[in-house]
Parts: sequence; structure tokens; C-alpha cells
Amino acid sequence: MKYCSSCGCEVILTVPEGDQRERFVCRDCGDIHYQNPKVVVGCVTHWDNQVLLCRRAIEPRLGFWTMPAGFMENGESLKEGAQRETFEECAAEVEVKDLISVISIASINQVHCIFNAPMLSDNFAITSESSEVKLFHESEIPWQDLAFRTVEVTLKHFFEQRRQGSHLPLVIDLGPH
Amino acid sequence: MKYCSSCGCEVILTVPEGDQRERFVCRDCGDIHYQNPKVVVGCVTHWDNQVLLCRRAIEPRLGFWTMPAGFMENGESLKEGAQRETFEECAAEVEVKDLISVISIASINQVHCIFNAPMLSDNFAITSESSEVKLFHESEIPWQDLAFRTVEVTLKHFFEQRRQGSHLPLVIDLGPH
Repeated sequence: MKYCSSCGCEVILTVPEGDQRERFVCRDCGDIHYQNPKVVVGCVTHWDNQVLLCRRAIEPRLGFWTMPAGFMENGESLKEGAQRETFEECAAEVEVKDLISVISIASINQVHCIFNAPMLSDNFAITSESSEVKLFHESEIPWQDLAFRTVEVTLKHFFEQRRQGSHLPLVIDLGPH
Repeated sequence: MKYCSSCGCEVILTVPEGDQRERFVCRDCGDIHYQNPKVVVGCVTHWDNQVLLCRRAIEPRLGFWTMPAGFMENGESLKEGAQRETFEECAAEVEVKDLISVISIASINQVHCIFNAPMLSDNFAITSESSEVKLFHESEIPWQDLAFRTVEVTLKHFFEQRRQGSHLPLVIDLGPH
């Protein structure tokens, strides 16, 4: 950030009065521009004991497998965002139920909230974001070719929840890698 | 947002190619400025079967009671943020444990994540953000004078979890009011 989004003048990095952190503050109008973590929402969506994974058609991690997930938008709830991302990435209609994982990744200023979401039918399709979309039994999951560590820990917790009949979400912090 | 924070030129509200939503896009450098929900983190912190509440010394809802909570910062995890906010608002040191509530408020673009956090000692104090800080038994909670609906539903779920010996968080969407 170099310029004030309110008035267009230059900003400086300084600790505002009464604050403890450096913020971008406008040299002219004094507006303080806070920057905060973003929320990523998604679903472990499943049909007939198989989970739906998408092969990424976009960077980062192009060609690797992920559950459908993406940035939460203004004006929607976590569940609405998770449902929207699932439809955008693999054209699957789902019912969004319990939280599976809540993962903080402080190094990249993100919080991931991933839900358990049964599919409403076995319809799904490739999209501009997914070059391949496929249902996997637990024994078929491509563990070595998953796109992110969040995908691995969430899928593992999903199957563990199933075995234990538990609905407790996994709440963890992940390091840079 | 009127000006581009990268180059200082005017932005326009338009749907970028490949997107479905209006974004602020710079007329000159083309930078797209996304706006996303913010995360509020906090704690139901407790000592000897009593919960610690703060009387707000700042707007909004000045004079009403709340649990310690505030905006999550870049570079921290949910639990680190909840711990920091608790110390900033009532000078209490806590161990942050399970999630009590995960509340989406789409109308104001916020997600609240509130944790169960036992106090490490019975030390606490008023601060610049809290004009009064006090321990309450369940029967003493000032239900009519709570600052926000998120406080009410979270406290109710905390006591319900205790009665049931449950660790399941409340995951809900709240409307404007």
C-alpha cells in the first residue's frame, strides 16, 4: 500500500495514537488503513462414502488435488461461502453441515474453515478452476499429490470423525509449511 | 474506496474479466482491490465457575457488557488473537482452549470466533477499553445489558456445553438484529 484509498495521497507506516501496531496512515487526511487476515471457506463434499476432489487448473499448485475452497466474500456467511465455492469449483450442489476444520495460518494471514457437506446428487463437472473432478474412496486419496497441507489434515480429520462418530472440529495452527 | 492504493489513481466499480462480482479496479494500473470479511476473536474467560465480563468504555454500545473480543490481526492465529484481545481488554492471562462459537454476521461482513479460556490466575483489571471488569456466576449475568447478540448466544452456549459436558461449538449465522 502506497496511497490512501480515501483521498489518493501518500500513506506512511506508523503507529497511530492509542494503537500498538504499525498501520498505513494517510499523510493528508489521516485515515488509518487496517489490514486483516482473510477467511478461506470450503467443503469436504461426499457421495456414497466417497469424497469429491478437484485437480487445480490454476496456480498455485496447478495440477495438484484439493477440496473445493476459496476466499469468503463480503455479504455472505461461512456456510454460504463454502456452498458457493463448491459450486464454482466442481459444479456440485451440497448441503453444508458441521465444521470439520478451523485452521489458522498466521504466516500468510489466513483462516480456513472447512465444512462437512453431503452432495445433493451425484452431479459434478470440471470448471475453469478444476481440470479434473473425481470421487475417491478413502483408500484411493492421492495423499502425495494434495495441493496444500490444509487439505491433508482436513481429509484425515474427516475420516477420523467418521470412524469415531464425532462432530468435533479440528482447531489448529499451521506453520509456513 | 475512491483511489488505488498501489498507484493513487481513481478506481471504478466493475466486474473484472472471469469474475462474477463488482470490485474496485484501478483505471490506470488495473489493480483489483478485493474486500473481504473480517474476523473477530475473543474468549469466554472464567475463574472458579464465574465468567469475566467487561463493561465497554468505547463505542459502539458504550456502557454495555461484553466478553473480551476484537479484530484479528495479520501475523497471528485465532487463538493468539483471542489471547491478545483478552489481555488488552481486561488484563487477564488465559489459556485458550476449545471453540465455543463461530458466528457469521453477513450484514456487517464479520465472522466471530470465541474460545473457552480458563484464567491462569484471578488477576484482572480495568483498561482503556473497559470501564469495569467483573466475575459473574451464571445467575448474575446481566442478560439485559449485554452489548451484542453474539455475546448472549455465546454465553448461553458456554453454560449449555458445561451442563452437557460437550465441546461442540455453536456454528450459526446471525441476521442484522
